[in-house]
Amino acid sequence: MKKTALIMAGGRGERFWPKSRKTMPKQFLSLTDDGKTMIQLTVERISSLVDMEDIFISTNKDYKKLVLEQLPEIPEENILCEPVGRNTAPCIGLGAVHVAKKHDDALMMVLPSDHLIKYTKMFVNTLSDGCSIAEKGPNLVTIGITPDYPETGYGYIKFNPEISDGHAFGVDRFVEKPTLEIAKEYLETEEYLWNSGMFVWKVSTILSNIQKFMPETYQGLMKIQEAIGTENQKAVLESTFSNFKSESIDYGIMEKAENIYILPGTFGWDDVGSWLAVERIRKTNESGNVVEGNIITVDCKNNIIQGSKKLIATVGIEGLIIVDTEDATLVCDKDSAGDIKKVLENLKICNRDEYI
Amino acid sequence: MKKTALIMAGGRGERFWPKSRKTMPKQFLSLTDDGKTMIQLTVERISSLVDMEDIFISTNKDYKKLVLEQLPEIPEENILCEPVGRNTAPCIGLGAVHVAKKHDDALMMVLPSDHLIKYTKMFVNTLSDGCSIAEKGPNLVTIGITPDYPETGYGYIKFNPEISDGHAFGVDRFVEKPTLEIAKEYLETEEYLWNSGMFVWKVSTILSNIQKFMPETYQGLMKIQEAIGTENQKAVLESTFSNFKSESIDYGIMEKAENIYILPGTFGWDDVGSWLAVERIRKTNESGNVVEGNIITVDCKNNIIQGSKKLIATVGIEGLIIVDTEDATLVCDKDSAGDIKKVLENLKICNRDEYI
Repeated sequence: MKKTALIMAGGRGERFWPKSRKTMPKQFLSLTDDGKTMIQLTVERISSLVDMEDIFISTNKDYKKLVLEQLPEIPEENILCEPVGRNTAPCIGLGAVHVAKKHDDALMMVLPSDHLIKYTKMFVNTLSDGCSIAEKGPNLVTIGITPDYPETGYGYIKFNPEISDGHAFGVDRFVEKPTLEIAKEYLETEEYLWNSGMFVWKVSTILSNIQKFMPETYQGLMKIQEAIGTENQKAVLESTFSNFKSESIDYGIMEKAENIYILPGTFGWDDVGSWLAVERIRKTNESGNVVEGNIITVDCKNNIIQGSKKLIATVGIEGLIIVDTEDATLVCDKDSAGDIKKVLENLKICNRDEYI
Repeated sequence: MKKTALIMAGGRGERFWPKSRKTMPKQFLSLTDDGKTMIQLTVERISSLVDMEDIFISTNKDYKKLVLEQLPEIPEENILCEPVGRNTAPCIGLGAVHVAKKHDDALMMVLPSDHLIKYTKMFVNTLSDGCSIAEKGPNLVTIGITPDYPETGYGYIKFNPEISDGHAFGVDRFVEKPTLEIAKEYLETEEYLWNSGMFVWKVSTILSNIQKFMPETYQGLMKIQEAIGTENQKAVLESTFSNFKSESIDYGIMEKAENIYILPGTFGWDDVGSWLAVERIRKTNESGNVVEGNIITVDCKNNIIQGSKKLIATVGIEGLIIVDTEDATLVCDKDSAGDIKKVLENLKICNRDEYI
């Protein structure tokens, strides 16, 4: 069966401020040593599995230009611009009807555009396994990540070791971000995986689930599908999509549907959720500093320093994140990386949009 | 007797990098809220005591333009450019022969260009007292600062409470920068003052002391004096001054001479020896931060942040010095402020002169 992919690239990536901006969010930045942007790596990673003309990118109209620039190999009509953000369920529905219009039925992988994966070959194998299970029946396959530690920032998925199909297991339930105590319990039971937000299914399967659990959205999606390729395409999309209820695919479908399978992924996944991730994905020097740019460090330990042309000299500092851009510099304690959003809140309140 | 002043402005101020540069050292920067530069404040401070045409500025030729720009009220011929730096004794000698050429004998105050003084009126009173004592005989008057704490970065002067003249005391000896233990002892004895590097004497007195203790330098100075106002002035200065032995006035004269008096100064003196001084001389906000420029702080305490137009956002940091300039940014732990010179050493080794 034809393999297609929907790459979701509408996010803002505020936690990577000041490099990530409203006009240049995380998925369009390069955070790795190879200089490729997150979304370029995402496409490259699946290029052995999916033809370029079957990769769809969902984003918003502000980022269409960036997508075209960074991914010239993707056909322009495959760039799906959401008129407004309505969370993942409508986004995936929009992708599904485009795939359906093109191929009737097909396999559809759903992938975030701003995660990193270290072992591409293993990742591709996992997706292939996912395709096999999805093709076999009305199955919804989710990719779970074997947890290393009790992370409280991710959702978890409880699988049922009694139900299995190859490497996949049946899913008992999806759970929201847990407390540390509960996350520790999850790890001990060895029956919970991290929810990576990556899925594989047939277009017919996801659409019939949307029809069942989100019937109003389904009606709208059918109108949108009908208008694809006509002169009304844009007008119908704008009027219909805006009326969709904002809903995550987890809450809208996955927590309610049947025939859900999970494939444990062990391919060096990282959601690159904050500047702290840079330490995991880039080389640290002998002092534990991760530096990029024109940097001099004197007696400094365990810092993340991201500069560019401008000289940054650091003396006697430890455990800091320093990010320098053309018009803004961040100096943040690693323990406070989660509070970078407070800077953005402050900027919004003060109407200093040029920095957001 | 005519009052004159020599303001020494040849220093590099490396400890204020990156604002202070070889091409723009500390004395030409504004570090106070009023926007005036250190050297402008130095001149302004003595303007009630000394006529502008009797203020001499010793500097090096690279800074002549800066002096002219910042102090247009000082006659150009009063800007004395040392061909090379030879420490304070030759510098003061050069000032002395210029004063001698102009006025035969006169009172001469010697002042650094990069200190701050909070209480100008009290400072002027101290200098006036100094002039009285200097005029009275062949006395060398030094201004001492009543110490607040056992600073190990200054020289100390032991005075003799038995010998006094008005507010002045006789001097027993000059001592180099002490260890913390010794500095604590000095404070306990209550017979030591900080050496501020400010002096008052008659030109005839300092020149006869130079003749006695630094005879070779004296010979050279006489040649220089003779050439002042002639077409050979520059050539004689260049050939003679370069041959002077590098020597501080403390070591060359003050530690050996007689008739030394010290006047205790209590006028809010600060030598502004490092970025840490900014905390003393500028207003801190309620979180203990001293900020200047386009700054957003989130949960930050006791930092010194000196920016300009570019946005600097800080999150969760404490006890740091952040200084942003056009081409270089410093992030330094307060406890490591003394190591900023290591950055400059590194830059020198790498021939990155543009940053020095």
